Amino acid sequence: MDSGHIQKIDIIRINQTSVVEKKDMVAVEEPMEIRLIHGNMDARQRKRLTVTMRTPGDDFELASGFLFSEGIIKDQKDILQIEHCPNEEADTTENVVRVTLSPEVFLDAEKLDRNFYTSSACGLCGKTSIEAIFDHHTPTITRSEIKITPGLIYSLIQKSKDQQLTFYHTGGLHAAALFDSSGNLELIREDIGRHNAVDKVIGAALVGGNRFPLSNHILLLSGRAGFELIQKATFAGIQVVAAVGAPSSLAIELAEESGMTLIGFLREGRFNVYSGKERLTMDA
Amino acid sequence: MDSGHIQKIDIIRINQTSVVEKKDMVAVEEPMEIRLIHGNMDARQRKRLTVTMRTPGDDFELASGFLFSEGIIKDQKDILQIEHCPNEEADTTENVVRVTLSPEVFLDAEKLDRNFYTSSACGLCGKTSIEAIFDHHTPTITRSEIKITPGLIYSLIQKSKDQQLTFYHTGGLHAAALFDSSGNLELIREDIGRHNAVDKVIGAALVGGNRFPLSNHILLLSGRAGFELIQKATFAGIQVVAAVGAPSSLAIELAEESGMTLIGFLREGRFNVYSGKERLTMDA
Repeated sequence: MDSGHIQKIDIIRINQTSVVEKKDMVAVEEPMEIRLIHGNMDARQRKRLTVTMRTPGDDFELASGFLFSEGIIKDQKDILQIEHCPNEEADTTENVVRVTLSPEVFLDAEKLDRNFYTSSACGLCGKTSIEAIFDHHTPTITRSEIKITPGLIYSLIQKSKDQQLTFYHTGGLHAAALFDSSGNLELIREDIGRHNAVDKVIGAALVGGNRFPLSNHILLLSGRAGFELIQKATFAGIQVVAAVGAPSSLAIELAEESGMTLIGFLREGRFNVYSGKERLTMDA
Repeated sequence: MDSGHIQKIDIIRINQTSVVEKKDMVAVEEPMEIRLIHGNMDARQRKRLTVTMRTPGDDFELASGFLFSEGIIKDQKDILQIEHCPNEEADTTENVVRVTLSPEVFLDAEKLDRNFYTSSACGLCGKTSIEAIFDHHTPTITRSEIKITPGLIYSLIQKSKDQQLTFYHTGGLHAAALFDSSGNLELIREDIGRHNAVDKVIGAALVGGNRFPLSNHILLLSGRAGFELIQKATFAGIQVVAAVGAPSSLAIELAEESGMTLIGFLREGRFNVYSGKERLTMDA
């Protein structure tokens, strides 16, 4: 139980027979700003990149994963320094993360200003969005020989439940978990925003020993699988994604284009396969 | 059943006794771009404002609600024209919405560029975020005499279930529904993004006869109640929000500051009250 993730509050619980005042726990949500410092010492640029509402904790991993997902960094060594920074106007330093990028990172200011490349390039149709992605992130996609069985997939939920402690106190968080090809849990991260949970896991895999590309890993999502999450997984080279919730039409299209196996509605003992069925073999 | 909301696809359904190829339905997700035209005929500005991933349908309501939630428009009459527009580079016109604003709308370009006012102002702490909101949207908040009872709140779910058709085909959509103070359903909208569902409902209330401010209405959310959704509700003057899922810490703080009654974990016959309990009276 990480106290930064949850907060105790007073509530009134009402049902058809009682009205009870009690203490309860809710997931913490706070804004986090990412600032970039870039360039050489002669010409340093500072940029306030974005603000995301997130659950505090693993902030550096979140920032790293976000920068990777947005195509700003490609590699752990693109980050020279990452730190919480004091802000002149406020008392708290915990909600601002300052990332110093290597001068070798190419930062396209115009793209950054247009609400980020991946979104701004795709104003037209799903097909265009998918093309933009492949233009954008040149192939992290290394086809792997990863094989999965139903038994392996069924086991992922229980393994993540064993670790996902905060959720059981609040019901208010999403989790993303990364498993190796044998189904061993390597990383799990939680956040109030499902995209943040994925960025945290990807950031952790990137900065913590650089496991990239993740083409022999399985990503488990506690919620639905929308386009943007599948996009993040694609960029990271992940080829098997299993979601507890439903996938969207465009998520399935992208998964197909990426050669990804996309699983949805994963429950104890059942799931649906939306793409990449060739990776699936039956249990012996 | 709106065929624009769902799409038929081929899946494989696997459980412990069978592997079946079948047709299934998923929620449609497509990008939508909002473009603004602003100014007088001598000096027209065109701006590509944002791209959001959404479920097609009610696009003009989505754009209107988004512009309202971002503080760009305050009123129905701030929009002179709203239309799907052809795009030079693509075959489809359905995913671009062009909004012509009245020259009287004050458009602060700097704010727009910084990933929107409401987010960019709040990089420091939750408290700052909340203060920024009240600086931003000068009080739509008209305190109302709306009273609620547990019986009224319990009834909302069934009423919305009766209308929320698409969800039952896909499991992949969020809904937002607006009820009057007696619990009569006025509007319900669905989207793959929970924020879009709320923007659609608020946009529909704004442009369809201008019900604003919504201080005598109840907003029902099919999912969790995060800060950004409560922010949208606050801007629209809504004083009772009931969510099927959990609220976040910052959502509760904002609800308290707004004098809003915030209900979470709404199920058949039970719910939690997080703020504004003074509006609640017991059933006779």
